[in-house]
Amino acid sequence: MPELRKDPIVQRWVVMAPDRAKRPSDLRDEPTVVDSEFDPFAEGNEDATPPEILAYREHGSTANGPGWRVRVVPNKFPALQVEGNLDKRGDGIYDMMNGLGAHEVIIECPHGETNMSRLSVENIREVLWVYHDRLVDLKRDRRLVHALIFKNKGMLAGASLQHSHSQMIATPVVPITIWEEMSGALEFYNYRGRSIFEDMIQQELATGTRVVLDTANFIAFCPYASRFPFETWILPKQPGSHFENIQRQAVDELGQVLKTILRKLELALDDPPYNYVIHTAPFNHAELPHFLWHIEIFPRLTRVAGFEWGSGFYINPVFPEEAAKFLREIDV
Amino acid sequence: MPELRKDPIVQRWVVMAPDRAKRPSDLRDEPTVVDSEFDPFAEGNEDATPPEILAYREHGSTANGPGWRVRVVPNKFPALQVEGNLDKRGDGIYDMMNGLGAHEVIIECPHGETNMSRLSVENIREVLWVYHDRLVDLKRDRRLVHALIFKNKGMLAGASLQHSHSQMIATPVVPITIWEEMSGALEFYNYRGRSIFEDMIQQELATGTRVVLDTANFIAFCPYASRFPFETWILPKQPGSHFENIQRQAVDELGQVLKTILRKLELALDDPPYNYVIHTAPFNHAELPHFLWHIEIFPRLTRVAGFEWGSGFYINPVFPEEAAKFLREIDV
Repeated sequence: MPELRKDPIVQRWVVMAPDRAKRPSDLRDEPTVVDSEFDPFAEGNEDATPPEILAYREHGSTANGPGWRVRVVPNKFPALQVEGNLDKRGDGIYDMMNGLGAHEVIIECPHGETNMSRLSVENIREVLWVYHDRLVDLKRDRRLVHALIFKNKGMLAGASLQHSHSQMIATPVVPITIWEEMSGALEFYNYRGRSIFEDMIQQELATGTRVVLDTANFIAFCPYASRFPFETWILPKQPGSHFENIQRQAVDELGQVLKTILRKLELALDDPPYNYVIHTAPFNHAELPHFLWHIEIFPRLTRVAGFEWGSGFYINPVFPEEAAKFLREIDV
Repeated sequence: MPELRKDPIVQRWVVMAPDRAKRPSDLRDEPTVVDSEFDPFAEGNEDATPPEILAYREHGSTANGPGWRVRVVPNKFPALQVEGNLDKRGDGIYDMMNGLGAHEVIIECPHGETNMSRLSVENIREVLWVYHDRLVDLKRDRRLVHALIFKNKGMLAGASLQHSHSQMIATPVVPITIWEEMSGALEFYNYRGRSIFEDMIQQELATGTRVVLDTANFIAFCPYASRFPFETWILPKQPGSHFENIQRQAVDELGQVLKTILRKLELALDDPPYNYVIHTAPFNHAELPHFLWHIEIFPRLTRVAGFEWGSGFYINPVFPEEAAKFLREIDV
């Protein structure tokens, strides 16, 4: 059984998910060439994955057979287990609970496309709706308090399969980054009575130098204190702390915005490995006036990250103003 | 001029250090084979580095010539600059200052050794004394408030040269990880009137399952909520928030402890890339009863770190109890 354990100093939760009987010397994650012969995520290979949780399908097609457009399955090697009780307990100064949660894979298209940016806008919108639907469903499970939606694109970003996909990990605890953002934003709100995200959007639009894309409902920009070269955030202009409360028109627009930003990054950086993460408020909070759901995208260009892991101190060789200018000028 | 910029939501400082006129497409950090033909850190090649800041030398030898045992030079490509004023300023909701600071390289031995663990205990002790001496010296610069000492070993851990070395980055701000540890530890102290580090040492010694090494003045253990497989911390048993206040006998012992732990990790994990970081309290604080300086060592075995970057949520495939047992049983 996996365990969730909390660091007692900084209150960071970690998932302990034992890797089936590996010896320490097998741990090294060598750059394995992804097997391109067989694609377990392709239409027709549905029996290569666990049975589907959700699929957007053509009328008359059958579950776990062909005829789907976007498909969600449990991760074959889940970090957390769905069945059981949390059994929260202490051990002296330490806190832990059973590693309960959901770990799902969102297969974004039936064909063997590697780049989300090359999917049609309509396809990307359906991926966003699947994110929405899964959040709404998982929220009903009272043991879970948060779900993190993320994408690993490319081997160097942690992807083990090339077929365009994203993942969702729902947990009975709040990831520390979300918790820190909520705390920081709350402090600002208590002090100034405004949402820091709204202030940020206002200032970014007024300044303009870090803006990559500005649409009716969204702004994409390279943040002022970017940790990584070409780090890009997408923020909705309408208040909303929970992604699952997104409205129809916003999804329509976000599909195009996400496609455009990913395409710009690919053209600027020669199809880089990247990650994106959707930051959204915990299930067990009502709408929070100080928080705003958003997407953070990190191209993975530099490997000098060990020091940063240990210190939280990032050295970024590219000013966000330069990255944004470069991205703005790329026609897609 | 590099800049220090603060993320207004989570208050994390980032160094913006523009990389001399690189084009975005040149940013990709491909696994460059380290040039083994020429070693700029070797004795006799002193003119391949900037002039030395400090060196432990044989009597009669001359600065920037042969005859040294441990040598400190400015980083040839520094992330921060030593000269100038901080010029702290705001820009709307954002805060920034000039990228002032020191970025130094500690060359740990005159010969081309790659593994610190193979240096003599006496040699490692001198490296620790150099850390001490540099901290004491940098502390005198009132513009600086903290110095981070760290090691990148191996290409995958961010090292660009194989010759055994570590680095020090002194900054006018406190890195967020140090700040969060201090805050968390202070909260515990205010609530319970005890240092969380002392409680942790007590519990680890009582439990024993996560202990790797237990000496008169130090404990090395795999922390309860380890983020990475075989993550190992070294804590002094005597209170002390500032590494630079370490005592002579402790340095003598720490040299042996560090050598032993690094050697055990190398044998267990087949000479892995790794990072270590020394967490020490800021210069501008007096002795803090709630904080304890310590060393955190992270073998770099898994590359799935992009998601973790974005969420702070780590998935560790190895229980610390198993890692510690494995390390304990290795004879060195």
